[in-house]
Amino acid sequence: MSDEEIIDKSVEKSQESRVETNHVSDSLTLLLYLGLLIVTLLTVWLFKHRRLRYIHETGLAVIYGLLVGAIIRYGSQPSEFSVRRFNATGSLPGSDALPPEKVLVTMLEIGDNNQSRVYEYDYKRRLYGNEVRSPILDEKATFNPEVFFNIILPPIIFCAGYSMKRKHFFRNIGAILTLAFIGTTISCVVVGSLVYGITRLSTGIGSSILFNECLLFGALISATDPVTVLAIFNDLNVDVDLYALVFGESVLNDAVAIVLSQSIEKYGALAASAGGIQGEAILKAVLSFLGVFFGALGIGSAMGCLTALITKYTRVRDHPLLESSLFILMSYSTFLAAEAARSTGIVAVLFCGICQAHYTYNNLSRESKESTKNFFELLNFLAENFTFLYIGVSTFTYSSHLWDPVFIFAAFVAILLGRALNVYPLCLLLNLGRRNRIGANKMHMLMFSGLRGAIAFALAIRNTSSSVRKMMLSTTLLIVIATVLLCGSLTTQMLQWLRIRVGVEEEAPKRNYEDIQSGSEAEIAMASAANRGSNRAWFARSWHGLDNRLLKPLLTHARPLLTETCPRCCLPLAQLLTTDEQLTQASVQRDLIADNLDDAPPEDEASTSSTGPAAGGNFNDFGGLANPAGPGQQNVVVRADLGGSNV
Amino acid sequence: MSDEEIIDKSVEKSQESRVETNHVSDSLTLLLYLGLLIVTLLTVWLFKHRRLRYIHETGLAVIYGLLVGAIIRYGSQPSEFSVRRFNATGSLPGSDALPPEKVLVTMLEIGDNNQSRVYEYDYKRRLYGNEVRSPILDEKATFNPEVFFNIILPPIIFCAGYSMKRKHFFRNIGAILTLAFIGTTISCVVVGSLVYGITRLSTGIGSSILFNECLLFGALISATDPVTVLAIFNDLNVDVDLYALVFGESVLNDAVAIVLSQSIEKYGALAASAGGIQGEAILKAVLSFLGVFFGALGIGSAMGCLTALITKYTRVRDHPLLESSLFILMSYSTFLAAEAARSTGIVAVLFCGICQAHYTYNNLSRESKESTKNFFELLNFLAENFTFLYIGVSTFTYSSHLWDPVFIFAAFVAILLGRALNVYPLCLLLNLGRRNRIGANKMHMLMFSGLRGAIAFALAIRNTSSSVRKMMLSTTLLIVIATVLLCGSLTTQMLQWLRIRVGVEEEAPKRNYEDIQSGSEAEIAMASAANRGSNRAWFARSWHGLDNRLLKPLLTHARPLLTETCPRCCLPLAQLLTTDEQLTQASVQRDLIADNLDDAPPEDEASTSSTGPAAGGNFNDFGGLANPAGPGQQNVVVRADLGGSNV
Repeated sequence: MSDEEIIDKSVEKSQESRVETNHVSDSLTLLLYLGLLIVTLLTVWLFKHRRLRYIHETGLAVIYGLLVGAIIRYGSQPSEFSVRRFNATGSLPGSDALPPEKVLVTMLEIGDNNQSRVYEYDYKRRLYGNEVRSPILDEKATFNPEVFFNIILPPIIFCAGYSMKRKHFFRNIGAILTLAFIGTTISCVVVGSLVYGITRLSTGIGSSILFNECLLFGALISATDPVTVLAIFNDLNVDVDLYALVFGESVLNDAVAIVLSQSIEKYGALAASAGGIQGEAILKAVLSFLGVFFGALGIGSAMGCLTALITKYTRVRDHPLLESSLFILMSYSTFLAAEAARSTGIVAVLFCGICQAHYTYNNLSRESKESTKNFFELLNFLAENFTFLYIGVSTFTYSSHLWDPVFIFAAFVAILLGRALNVYPLCLLLNLGRRNRIGANKMHMLMFSGLRGAIAFALAIRNTSSSVRKMMLSTTLLIVIATVLLCGSLTTQMLQWLRIRVGVEEEAPKRNYEDIQSGSEAEIAMASAANRGSNRAWFARSWHGLDNRLLKPLLTHARPLLTETCPRCCLPLAQLLTTDEQLTQASVQRDLIADNLDDAPPEDEASTSSTGPAAGGNFNDFGGLANPAGPGQQNVVVRADLGGSNV
Repeated sequence: MSDEEIIDKSVEKSQESRVETNHVSDSLTLLLYLGLLIVTLLTVWLFKHRRLRYIHETGLAVIYGLLVGAIIRYGSQPSEFSVRRFNATGSLPGSDALPPEKVLVTMLEIGDNNQSRVYEYDYKRRLYGNEVRSPILDEKATFNPEVFFNIILPPIIFCAGYSMKRKHFFRNIGAILTLAFIGTTISCVVVGSLVYGITRLSTGIGSSILFNECLLFGALISATDPVTVLAIFNDLNVDVDLYALVFGESVLNDAVAIVLSQSIEKYGALAASAGGIQGEAILKAVLSFLGVFFGALGIGSAMGCLTALITKYTRVRDHPLLESSLFILMSYSTFLAAEAARSTGIVAVLFCGICQAHYTYNNLSRESKESTKNFFELLNFLAENFTFLYIGVSTFTYSSHLWDPVFIFAAFVAILLGRALNVYPLCLLLNLGRRNRIGANKMHMLMFSGLRGAIAFALAIRNTSSSVRKMMLSTTLLIVIATVLLCGSLTTQMLQWLRIRVGVEEEAPKRNYEDIQSGSEAEIAMASAANRGSNRAWFARSWHGLDNRLLKPLLTHARPLLTETCPRCCLPLAQLLTTDEQLTQASVQRDLIADNLDDAPPEDEASTSSTGPAAGGNFNDFGGLANPAGPGQQNVVVRADLGGSNV
């Protein structure tokens, strides 16, 4: 072996040991988070076991995160990287003056053999201000923010759609859409203007913020995340309509806020350029908003319906493992397809989740129903708690925070006012056309449910390239922590104080055959009552008709048959699209089971105990859904079953 | 806004659009893999539906991967990166002459304003030979190999441990350990020597390979992966002992091969340096092997037992979602803990999986049993198929393949001989002491089951820094594809040809109370028969005793009580460690249910239909396992249940 080779080997060895050291420290970081999750989880159990309801698991996660973040920050020395600086003068290789994507460094050893080694480097980011001068410190315990958007958020948002209580959601669809679209826009504009106005009065970093940046902050901070409130609503069986309003608004306003902030980022600077406000750019921004939003809605629903078609027309449900895998793959593909189409994956998975629950779920085998429900519940639980832990930890460990007291004060005032100007006027307006009015106490509760969480954080941390963006992230962190801890721990008291009905029994299981027959009419009536103006009532009614007469018979095994609802001319096609399962089922029983399946399963309340289909024997043994049982019958059977095994 | 700011903004915009383009292409790549998985899955279903057994899903995945890889390779233009080269002369910043971890490039614009921007670059790798001169091409559709080790492999290996048919595994433990430890070592040495010998005769790249590199290749290619064979064994209910041998050997030899290749990498060069073979270095290698292997075994079992203790002594099972999350977090923590301790995470999760199945599983609530089983099954299925797809795709898209015909020929000859010299002599030796001998046809089947798969591929792709390593990867890819396609599609014919019993019913469900009473004695006798020599028979017997008298009563709710088995002096401690559940259960019923739980659930055969605990009502409603039912009773109940719902 030559001298050169020996030196080569020794450098390689040192490099390998450096890689190994990095790997060990990466493992330790991840282990730290898992350990924290485990501790959070055990504490949550202890609280539940002792029936303490002071604090929700996400609040706990934030607190543990803050503690550990502080320990990491103040208890450990920052480690330095070895850095080498190069200057590049002259025109740059690309015509557009971009930094090169890769850099090759040839190292020449001083010595007799004039040996050289070539190393490859990947572009990471541009450095600003202080970062350029000071040595680059290790950002301990922080991840690439894209991890949130591509891995952590999709299951949370999908699960929100998949576990939605669709009946109550659709019953209040008018109010929810109003609050989500108009409300979020109001909140965005109010927060943006207020923050802009207040920061004008100061001289700090905040004073250099532009109006379009304020609007961006308004958009990202308008994404509410009342996960703690909803968990308590669930535990206490709060009034279903209030639940639907809070849940529906928060889910849809996440989607609106994400798309809104994208549009503002793209066209905001243009719209506010040259001092004034440019009408054309605003129009462009609105069009881009609509394009991205409905693009994502289209992709999400299309993928959901495609999954429904595959699960209906192939008998893949004979192999539940294949079926569940297909379901999961199709759902994540939705996210990627939307991202690849330059739309918003997060919004697409939300609508995909709703479609999967509304159509595909009914086609799945019993095993797949169980396993997909469990799978997404688990992912959701882990992802959510991880996010809040990370919020806590990164409050201390993130290295380039920028705290501007005036901006923080402005932000807190603005979100309070923004929320109030969103909830109260819109609810009063909605009450003009609603049969069951939104009472003042429910309005207060809606106002109170404006917690900020995962989405606001993810939007803020995605881009921290300028100092204004850094200030936004720091402020968002504070707002998230404050609202989660404060509102999260006061929900029960607030419910008592506002005298909101708790312990409300779900009326659905008590509905009998007659109710179901008249059910659709009643629901349409309700939906139209909820929607002021003939236009939207018509929309709700025609959607219900389309869903019941075309989509459900096409995408699921539900009655009525396509052959009964379609016009004469399409009869051959309708016959082709009607499966044997649909034909062989007796009409009355069929309606009962369809309703049962449609209402009960992937919903939130079944999160801990799987009652419905799980207890009722294996449908599949007798060929799909050929032996349906009503919900009442099932209960009796289960009791007999347990009695039998006692003997 | 100044000129400088405008240029800044425009560069930032272009940079953002570049980032977006990269993001879109990343999404498309991932979408491609998901799409391929979906197509594979639907084809698998079609084959199953039509009862075709020509090919297993992993074989299909490889074929689809090859097709799409070829299309990507020959159908698309390679995209180039913008690259900038720098020379660094003089002594390097670190004393150990390592490349710097980061590089900062200051770009100076030519012009009036002398503006500069600073960009940060991260170290990626060292470049060799051709790579230095030619522009760096985009390696399309390839991932960082660490993704395999840290994300894809752990669930596969954990699932192997968790779904193991433990009874048959432990019954054949002697044979399995012999084949895994001695057999893999034989195979490694034989393959290494043969490859070294044959390549000496040629003049290609292969001829420059060192003996320790050949040994490394021998170690990594000795990891067998008979997933296709086992799937067919499962479908056809092949003889349980043969199943246990093939399964057990493959699982443990993965672990052995991983640790072996690590030790050879570390000490191989040392041991073979200066021409001769150095005894001291070999001793060091052996000690490192033992240290890493038993370290991983220790960490894995410890974490498994810890999970068992937590689930036993806290009543976290009242909240199945928390319990399942805890289970999953603890299991992945095992991987990270072992990696952080510089041991091998993959080996640790294997033993963790075995412990989780043997102890923790029995403590879980019914819902958690179901959901953890489903969760890991799904992960395993997706990860496995993804791996084989990736093997197919990267055969074409990986940019620096090195095909050396002599080396490839040598490798194929060597693995055949290596497998033969491992299986036949060891089986003949084992037969001397076994009561139920391994017949010649079973030996042939064992020989035939030596497919190479995910682990060999992952070990080969982990390090491709030198040309010899690249040659190893290319050869490994060929071997994997050849064995998976050939052996995978011929298994059914081979079983017929070798006249191996199929359709063997599992004897366990027919065991009644008397069998169980005498069961443990019989098993010990069998175990001792399987293990030649008094030493190992003593080991098996004492392990069984320890497990039944101390570990199971301590870690699960199983009988006998610790208070019955422990010596007098420890009685207070034993009472403390005995839960109320254990005390209140009637002894006879308890034994029945413990045996039932222990044998039936997380095993492979229940992968598609969840029979056992799922059908038998919700145990939890009546306080844990207080109302147990034997498997026979359960079946009757289920039938009555379905009959009832028919009315």
